Parts: sequence; structure tokens; C-alpha cells
Amino acid sequence: MQKLILDLDTGVDDALAISYALGSPEVDLIGITGTYGNVLLDQGVRNALAITDLMGHPEVKVYKGLPHSSTADSFEVLPVSAFIHGENGIGDAVIPDSNREPESEPAVDFIIDAVKTYGKDLTYVPTGPMTNIAAALKKAPEIKDEIGKIVLMGGALTVCGNVNAWEEANISQDPDAANELFRSGAPVTMVGLDVTLQTLLTYKETARWRNLGTQAGTFLADMTDFYIKAYETTSPHLGGCGLHDPLAVGVAVDPTLVTCLPINMQVETEGPTRGRTIGDNTRLNDPHKTMQVAIGVDVPRFLDEFMTRITRLAEQKA
Amino acid sequence: MQKLILDLDTGVDDALAISYALGSPEVDLIGITGTYGNVLLDQGVRNALAITDLMGHPEVKVYKGLPHSSTADSFEVLPVSAFIHGENGIGDAVIPDSNREPESEPAVDFIIDAVKTYGKDLTYVPTGPMTNIAAALKKAPEIKDEIGKIVLMGGALTVCGNVNAWEEANISQDPDAANELFRSGAPVTMVGLDVTLQTLLTYKETARWRNLGTQAGTFLADMTDFYIKAYETTSPHLGGCGLHDPLAVGVAVDPTLVTCLPINMQVETEGPTRGRTIGDNTRLNDPHKTMQVAIGVDVPRFLDEFMTRITRLAEQKA
Repeated sequence: MQKLILDLDTGVDDALAISYALGSPEVDLIGITGTYGNVLLDQGVRNALAITDLMGHPEVKVYKGLPHSSTADSFEVLPVSAFIHGENGIGDAVIPDSNREPESEPAVDFIIDAVKTYGKDLTYVPTGPMTNIAAALKKAPEIKDEIGKIVLMGGALTVCGNVNAWEEANISQDPDAANELFRSGAPVTMVGLDVTLQTLLTYKETARWRNLGTQAGTFLADMTDFYIKAYETTSPHLGGCGLHDPLAVGVAVDPTLVTCLPINMQVETEGPTRGRTIGDNTRLNDPHKTMQVAIGVDVPRFLDEFMTRITRLAEQKA
Repeated sequence: MQKLILDLDTGVDDALAISYALGSPEVDLIGITGTYGNVLLDQGVRNALAITDLMGHPEVKVYKGLPHSSTADSFEVLPVSAFIHGENGIGDAVIPDSNREPESEPAVDFIIDAVKTYGKDLTYVPTGPMTNIAAALKKAPEIKDEIGKIVLMGGALTVCGNVNAWEEANISQDPDAANELFRSGAPVTMVGLDVTLQTLLTYKETARWRNLGTQAGTFLADMTDFYIKAYETTSPHLGGCGLHDPLAVGVAVDPTLVTCLPINMQVETEGPTRGRTIGDNTRLNDPHKTMQVAIGVDVPRFLDEFMTRITRLAEQKA
């Protein structure tokens, strides 16, 4: 069975990504590695432990990753992140703390060990900054050829960014780390705003979770309603919230959900468009393409899979 | 038969585009409209008249378009344009002036009249700034629904620009005009650097023209060698020159040469990334896509068509 690691800055859509993975019998979630972004590292780790407990999967281990960008000494949550994800990262929904602690092994070492153990059977899904995987590639460059695949949520190739016209939030946190990953030759699928702004959730769907009458269903509904409400302010033209991180998990489980452009990518790290994800013109005519960028998505099928898998998981917890 | 208008700032690859069109029995080149960019308007018009004569097609009428951007009062050729295309725009190759004059009807009026006359049978191929077509759309907005198709050379969606990281040269001359076209709803196919930097010509091919021993063959070889030589300085990693404008004509004649992404596009006109061609996020989820952006190209087939058509034309002129 495909082994899965989620690398999360556990905010709202990260929590939905955990739920999607746990609701997918095709994959075995062997660990969650924590990063910073939507929330501080420690808050995200706390959320990941609490959510896996709530969803009935306390066997999922959680590892602490690096607490800030590869080019900074510290990290503070942006006000807009708190506005979108809530002060606690999960829409200010209240769920019990786990009585578990994160593992003592650092996330970067766990990622490397997992590649060594599972090889091509391992899929790594980062949905925050690329800081942890860039550090792992620096420490053990050979894993780029040994890992099964990396399916990331981040970037924007054919559409504008969400930080500014050219920059997507996850990439913006650590453009240098993302550029290291993009140029590494690792088998990366980029699931960016090109597709995740097409997969929208509304109050109609969250009502289904609320109507389950379970603790998990109520949590998912409360948390996601907060997120949808934030989107009404930040992106009123969309008519829902973007299912960013869950789509990356969806593509990890079933790549046929998206159509991809094979392309050699880079992240601009200099000049006014620092943080832009774009093709590397110097490798345009290299017939070997190391990345796939999702440029189309089967929206109805993904939304159906999303609701089916997460609702099934949430109704099991009475 | 498909009627074709080429809108050219006749530099080197524009001259190759004329040759491709004249060498294509599937289309009837009913006129060339002049614009500015690689050269001044008058120089480009002069070149278009001289080249159609040299290629044995003095029946092709040439119309003078607008001499500068929609947001400027004048235009000067950039030094880099003169470096790439030569002082005279055609690689400093010397060919006789035509004894014909451009038509007295302004290009903008000719474009509108041609749409009224030929409707869906008309294909318009702008390979310079979008100034003329934007002016035509302003004067007669209804032509957006009446024209067959517009296949433009310009822009860069998945790769970096050639003016700077985000800006392609044709679009950079008049981003506002291009944005008017992109947002107009007209049926536009964008053939940009995404594909034209993949279709490369080398001295090997130009030697075939030189060996024809015709005036046309010698002219094509001299002119294009100048262009290839400039590329050795500006883009040494490519190993040839980009066949920008001819590819747009190729796609106008045979759309199956490229694979396209259906997308609603815009040109950024504000901020640091003015001139960037990118998806319009506000119309991302509109199921009606008004544009097609070429993101893949059958390089061997295009190069074969290119050489076959142009060589056939050039050998006819003994």
C-alpha cells in the first residue's frame, strides 16, 4: 500500500487534508511532519495531534519540523493567516488537546528514514512552506531519486498568486527552499492555485457534516464555516472556499483527478518577482521534465470524492 | 478558402511569417497591416512591400497601421531590437524597394472591413503589438463576435519573458491594448514564448535556402543568419533562433500543431508586473473560455512544414 507523509502547517484546509487522507483506504498515513505558516510550528503540531485523535486515528505519529524559513531566524504568523484560519489555526473551533506528544525524531530525519524504508512506495505531500523537504534534500540529496513522488500544494503557474499578483502563500514563506525542491530533479507534482481555486466548498456541504451529529462532524463544520466566511471577505468572487490542501492529497491518492503539464520549473528568488513559480527557460528544451504542474481538474469528481471520504470518516465517530 | 491578414512590425521573423503564409496553399493572404516594434511603422511597411514583391506576390496589399502605443505619443526602436533584427529590420540584408505604395485605407479600417466581408472565414494574425486590433475593437466592438479567429504571437504564460522575467516583447510595447484584446471575448489563440522558444532554426536550415541559388533563397539565408547570430549573444543556451512569428502563422493554418490550454486571460497593466500575460482569476471558474494558450508544440512537424513551405516558395523565384 502507498505510504503517505503529510507535511502541514495545520490550519483549516490542512485539517481537511488530514481527514481526506484518513478517509482514503488506498493510502497509509505513516506520519505528519509539522511546519510553520498558517500557524506557528507548535500550534500546528498541537492541531495535528488533536485532529488525528478526534478522527479516531491516534496511531498517526507527528514530527516537529523546522520552525522558520531557510533564510530567516524566526517566524511570525501573518495577520491575514489568522484571519483566514483563526487564532488557533482551526477556525477557532475548540477540540481537546491530545494526550500524546510529538515524536522525538526531527521531521527532517523522519522524512529521510521513510524514503530509505519505503522508497518508491512513499508519497510526500507538503502543503505549507517547502522548508522541511529542502532541508532533507540538502542532508540526503540521494532521496530525490529514491522517493516515489512529491505532491505539493503551492504556487501558481497560469493564474495570479494570493499574496500578490505573482506569489502564492506557501511558496512565499520560503522561496529559496521551494526553488531547491523545484530544481532538484525530484519527481514533483505541483498542485497550485491554478486548480485549487476551482475546487470550492460551500455552507451546503458543511451542513452535511453538521447533520451527522458526531463530534467530528460538528468540528469539521464549525472549522470550515469559519474558513468559508473568511473567503467571503478575501475572495468574494469565488462563492466558496478553496480546497487547497485536500486537493493535493486527492491527487496523491488519484493522479487522474488533474491534468498536468510536464515542465521544468523554478521559483524566482531574485528581483521584484521573488517567489513566483514559473518555467525555467534554460531547461525548456530539455526533453526530460522533472515536474508536473496541475492545470486542469475534474471538479465534480474531486468534490464527490472529498465529501464521500471525509463524511464517511466523520460519521464513524459517534 | 481561409482569408488571412498578417499584422506585422516586419523584422526578420515577420518576414519568415510572410513567407510561410505565401507558401501555404490553404490560406489566401488578403493583406498585411503594418505596426511598429521591431522597426518603425514606415520601415516595416517598406519591408512588407519589398518582401512580397521579392517572393513573387505583388498582389498582397499593405496597409499602414498606428505608429505607436495606445498610451504613448511616439515610438522609438529599442537598441536590442536593432541588434536582433538589424537597422533595417531584415538583418541588414539588401533587397530592392517595391515600386508599390501602401494602400490609402488605414489598417484599422481595413481590418474592420475585412471582418465585415469575410466574417468567420477571416483569420487575423498579429505578431507585433496589439495596437491595431485594439483600435479596431474600440471602433467596431461587434467584430469580436464576427471574426473567425485571432492567432497572435506574444506573451508568455508558463515561461519567463524576454524583456524581463515576466514580460514578452510584443506585449510590452502596448500592454493596455493587449489587455483590451484579451478581455474582449474575441476568439484568441496566444502563441507565446511557451512554444516559440521550442521551435528553433539553425544555420543548417538556412544553408538549404542559400543553396537554392535564387534571389529569394539568398535573401532568406542572409537575413536569418543575422538573426541566428544575434541569438548566439542574447540566448546562447537555445542553440538557434526562435521561430516566433512563423509559428503563429503555422497555427493559423493548422491549429493541430500546438496543444492549447483554454483559459480566460488578462494582461497586467498596473504594478511592478505590468505587461505580464496571466490568467484572470476573477474569470477562472467561468466555464466559457475565450482564449486558447499554446503550451505544447509538435516541434519536428512544425519545422518540417516551415522548411517545406518556405523552401518551395523560395525556389520558385529563379
